[in-house]
Amino acid sequence: MEPSEKINAIVLNGAEKSGAEIELIVEEPLEIRINGEPYATIMRTPGDELELAAGFCFTEGIVDSFADILTIGFCADAEDTKNIINVMTPAREECAGAADPRKSSGRKLESRSSCGLCGVKMLEDIYKRLTPLKDGPEIRAADIVKMQHLMIRDQKLQVRTKGAHAVALVRMNGEPIVVREDVGRHNALDKAIGYALLRRIDCSGCVAILSGRISFEMAQKAVRAQIPIVAAVSAATSLAVELAERLNCTLIGRLRDDSMNIYTHKERIIY
Amino acid sequence: MEPSEKINAIVLNGAEKSGAEIELIVEEPLEIRINGEPYATIMRTPGDELELAAGFCFTEGIVDSFADILTIGFCADAEDTKNIINVMTPAREECAGAADPRKSSGRKLESRSSCGLCGVKMLEDIYKRLTPLKDGPEIRAADIVKMQHLMIRDQKLQVRTKGAHAVALVRMNGEPIVVREDVGRHNALDKAIGYALLRRIDCSGCVAILSGRISFEMAQKAVRAQIPIVAAVSAATSLAVELAERLNCTLIGRLRDDSMNIYTHKERIIY
Repeated sequence: MEPSEKINAIVLNGAEKSGAEIELIVEEPLEIRINGEPYATIMRTPGDELELAAGFCFTEGIVDSFADILTIGFCADAEDTKNIINVMTPAREECAGAADPRKSSGRKLESRSSCGLCGVKMLEDIYKRLTPLKDGPEIRAADIVKMQHLMIRDQKLQVRTKGAHAVALVRMNGEPIVVREDVGRHNALDKAIGYALLRRIDCSGCVAILSGRISFEMAQKAVRAQIPIVAAVSAATSLAVELAERLNCTLIGRLRDDSMNIYTHKERIIY
Repeated sequence: MEPSEKINAIVLNGAEKSGAEIELIVEEPLEIRINGEPYATIMRTPGDELELAAGFCFTEGIVDSFADILTIGFCADAEDTKNIINVMTPAREECAGAADPRKSSGRKLESRSSCGLCGVKMLEDIYKRLTPLKDGPEIRAADIVKMQHLMIRDQKLQVRTKGAHAVALVRMNGEPIVVREDVGRHNALDKAIGYALLRRIDCSGCVAILSGRISFEMAQKAVRAQIPIVAAVSAATSLAVELAERLNCTLIGRLRDDSMNIYTHKERIIY
């Protein structure tokens, strides 16, 4: 499946009207199964499904490390072989880590099966599963600006469809690791984190550049991957800033040209 | 609770560095209970919770009309009285409509409790619950542009926080019904639709203006409310266009100044 498709649309530009072929970003459901059991269905842009599933399982707390992923693959026996992916993990009691998030968490995706967890308890539960970041490293503000330019250069799907979010993972020295695009910003981040996880790249030496906003869920995924600096083109939410402040993550928003707002842990930024 | 909060941030602007008080959009979990049972927890911006819950229940297929909502209110007996809302509905067998979506659907929010529904079946299931729109009405392209200006004028939270999505519902004659802002675009749409539902305003005579992109979920919510014309500042996805094409909804994207892309059912637009 392609990540974009062409349709014929009417394009109005002031008084001018024309028919034109335009490119849409493709959105398709992907069912993620854990050990053969349906776990979540997410709307995503086709491509990099193994990374997406790996990243999703890691940031959602289903697996704690690369070693917890026994296999990942498309379900060859399913009706719809391109949209169902299965992740095999050891039985939870054999994994490191806390309580099974498959049973205890109240995350959005599973909230309908939660039994009376209210929102406040849901947040506490997520905090319990996250490890605060270590202090450092430091980085020049100007280098973060360069990293954003690097991401923009690779936003090929966005140029064509105007409907794609992007996430770039970049080493502190400016070396790009990966840029991923997706109709969903959570998926773009999971794809980038999954890319790193499958190659055993340590995200604690990376900056994540985001094309969109920093919601609680985005900040939580970044902290889960121990990414110390998260910089986004758009603004952050109150809850994302609270999480980053508490867990020692540097959050930057409104990154445009050579301006930015540093919300939390500014000690990592050199001016 | 306020929809925004102030924090002290470092603002970099080229070589200039200053401390500044900036305003963040507030993101807080809201638990929605149906007849006292936890159903979903959504991240939303505080405000208009009754409308949000009503709109959510309607667009998710939990209730089919205003008459199906017996009461909506905050849970006064809960620990967290501002973030839990309960919707009382008649037992499902007494409601009009198809199978109970609480049991049968594979929507994202409940996907973890779905039993083997793959993505394709999930989409079919959603299609089954939606009614195609009737033909008409017609509207001038220039009037849609005016409606967008009307929404922009009311995006007060966006001006302060740069983190708010907005949805405006406007009558065909240009009369505004409501503008709602929220950290989530689904919530902004649910708040606007809930506003109309609680006042028994028929959305089939309205245009919805959206500040963001049109995903499948946004298109599905609009069609569920029988909104014939949906126009968004950003692009639409492949699946949103497919749904709108099949169910006779006019979808417009990239609405900027006096330009727009008309993706589907252009017969409603007069040039």
